[in-house]
Amino acid sequence: MKITPVKGTNDYLPKEAALRDYLTSKICETYVNCGFQRIFTPILEDIENLDKSEGGDNLNLIFKVMKRGDKLDKAIASGDPGAIADMGLRYDLTLPLSRYYANNRAALPSPFKVIQIDKVYRAERPQKGRLREFVQCDIDILGSDSESCEIELMHTTAKALINIGIENFKIKVNDRRILKEILLTTGFQEDQLDTVCISFDKLDKIGAEGVKNELLAKEIDPAVVEDFAKLIANAPFTLDYVRNICKDSCYVDTLAKIIDTVNDLAAGRYLAEFDMTLVRGQGYYTGTVFEIESLDFGSSIAGGGRYDNLIGKFLKEDIPAVGFSIGFERIFSILMDKGANLADQNKKVVLFYRPEEVKEAIVQAEELRKVYDVALFTMPKKLGKFLNKLEEQGYDGFMVLGRDEEVKFFGEAQ
Amino acid sequence: MKITPVKGTNDYLPKEAALRDYLTSKICETYVNCGFQRIFTPILEDIENLDKSEGGDNLNLIFKVMKRGDKLDKAIASGDPGAIADMGLRYDLTLPLSRYYANNRAALPSPFKVIQIDKVYRAERPQKGRLREFVQCDIDILGSDSESCEIELMHTTAKALINIGIENFKIKVNDRRILKEILLTTGFQEDQLDTVCISFDKLDKIGAEGVKNELLAKEIDPAVVEDFAKLIANAPFTLDYVRNICKDSCYVDTLAKIIDTVNDLAAGRYLAEFDMTLVRGQGYYTGTVFEIESLDFGSSIAGGGRYDNLIGKFLKEDIPAVGFSIGFERIFSILMDKGANLADQNKKVVLFYRPEEVKEAIVQAEELRKVYDVALFTMPKKLGKFLNKLEEQGYDGFMVLGRDEEVKFFGEAQ
Repeated sequence: MKITPVKGTNDYLPKEAALRDYLTSKICETYVNCGFQRIFTPILEDIENLDKSEGGDNLNLIFKVMKRGDKLDKAIASGDPGAIADMGLRYDLTLPLSRYYANNRAALPSPFKVIQIDKVYRAERPQKGRLREFVQCDIDILGSDSESCEIELMHTTAKALINIGIENFKIKVNDRRILKEILLTTGFQEDQLDTVCISFDKLDKIGAEGVKNELLAKEIDPAVVEDFAKLIANAPFTLDYVRNICKDSCYVDTLAKIIDTVNDLAAGRYLAEFDMTLVRGQGYYTGTVFEIESLDFGSSIAGGGRYDNLIGKFLKEDIPAVGFSIGFERIFSILMDKGANLADQNKKVVLFYRPEEVKEAIVQAEELRKVYDVALFTMPKKLGKFLNKLEEQGYDGFMVLGRDEEVKFFGEAQ
Repeated sequence: MKITPVKGTNDYLPKEAALRDYLTSKICETYVNCGFQRIFTPILEDIENLDKSEGGDNLNLIFKVMKRGDKLDKAIASGDPGAIADMGLRYDLTLPLSRYYANNRAALPSPFKVIQIDKVYRAERPQKGRLREFVQCDIDILGSDSESCEIELMHTTAKALINIGIENFKIKVNDRRILKEILLTTGFQEDQLDTVCISFDKLDKIGAEGVKNELLAKEIDPAVVEDFAKLIANAPFTLDYVRNICKDSCYVDTLAKIIDTVNDLAAGRYLAEFDMTLVRGQGYYTGTVFEIESLDFGSSIAGGGRYDNLIGKFLKEDIPAVGFSIGFERIFSILMDKGANLADQNKKVVLFYRPEEVKEAIVQAEELRKVYDVALFTMPKKLGKFLNKLEEQGYDGFMVLGRDEEVKFFGEAQ
């Protein structure tokens, strides 16, 4: 039998599990306090729902679950490998949420402010920091197209981060509709916009020259690409600059208002700013997109955007929707690396010598449990070594049944 | 796109999700307070580990996950359906725990007192109350063969149930080794014991006559079956009766001590009693087995036992182990049916008229959030209907930005 967890997944030790529990409950508490409501959806989704979702690259990363019994036999006999699976593991929480909303709409308030903290699965090529099973923490507002939703999501997500001890970050904000208007003005065709966006998204990684080469490789009119390359090499990318290009667009004013309001509310604790290069990967985003970057760690720790057409795939009408997702695993590993120490100096041990004393030991432990978290152990052969191990687990004191009147700290024993 | 969740799984509405959250955190809190430590293992397990585990009938209910890429192509080309999957969804938390312990032993205290609250998957034929995705709440003690473990598990599990409002239950306790001694005395062969146990387990469902017929159908010596039928039709099944049959067995005394101590600690709140007919389904149990029966609902709400050989499948040495699992879904549905009302009268709403006021509305809401959980909404067209919906969700008061000085209760508005 293999003793390691399957590739790309983790066993979490008690200290890690305690931090994960702390983070999820603290984040959830913040969200509930801000009027969001938690729901749960299944990890398994219909394979066709997953395949037809606009998940971009994630569609290639779906873990597929085999049919069972007669249906499996038939599927294999048919010779069509595509017929073998009937379900898959969800690759994000947004598709299940859209299905959920369509299924339960009558029982939900509108707009619906919802929390999801749960596991998702992607068959990523295993590499450092890329997990195949990981937790996402999302808040979404369904049923409202008001920009106050974006403001509320940014304010609330930032608050959740601050509440778990993450500071020194900035929120980057863009609107895909603005970006597309600029691209149209530059001379790109309507049907080229998505692929141009994907290349443009890489600007900070591959530079203006890299973006240009990628667009040329995509066989886009070299004259247009040249103009665009000049633009991105020189443009200041400020909202005022963009406002000049997109004169008739209401999106610029709305975006400016979102950014100003978020900054007002932030009162200097963090900064929201326009970033014309922000695109985000998912195919389903239709308007605003945003991302939180940790300035300490130079990496993205949250991301989201508006997806006004996704729920319409399940219902006959479109339902406006916008969401913001905290990169739980990134934050977990940042805090583990920082040596995050939970205040668990509340853990004590009751030791007893003989099995016959177990009842008295439990009674004694229950008394202490009114104040501490208390574990019960029979006296080990090597007390010092045993207490060292417990100290690693966050215990700091013990009592020996029938010997000590009070809890002693570990140091006093050795 | 299909809007319902896949067969045998549930979408949980906010009220249901809140109850599930409350139950898991309350149960976990009790366990942590009693010195157990939470861990997490992946939902995905190696398919061979799952197949080789002694999971009894559960082995037929494993959801299998397909290989990917070249490996999948090769597996399909090989024509062997058994080669298509490389992983499966875990069907319980005990097998992953055994693997986890083998993998992480050096970092864990011994004995290791562990909490697992997580999802498991079984491809059950869908029927009322049988879910394909469900939560288990387990505590286990690994690395000790002392009967104080059984005592502690029963005491702690009972305490967790009481803390979530479940009362009026009894704990049924047996030891498979005692049962097997009795069967040997009756004349059964060593290699018949497991199958006889399985039939005997059904005594309360099919009666003594049913057990007799099932054993005869299994082609066991009719004379032995006849003697056994007489025994189970007349035996009082008390510990004293059993002690008389198994004169040399130490297991009876140990079991008596476990039961007495648990009852001492229970101080009348619940009763632990010997039940010679208790077997439990899993193949991996080696000694004590126990079950909690709700006297209000006549059903099993927790079960467990000792499994001293399972971890040995992963390590070169056997590690004694014993666990107790709360039937989370049964308890969740009992409490939902009872109309469990969480004390969520702490939820208020701030309403505002114009999007321009969102900043002031958030500032106002943040002020109230020091005391209440507060959701923010723009003023809806039909206020009464809207507030009714929110009342269903557990909200009971609201404030209109710029109009009210204080939070008003819903009744005052309509």
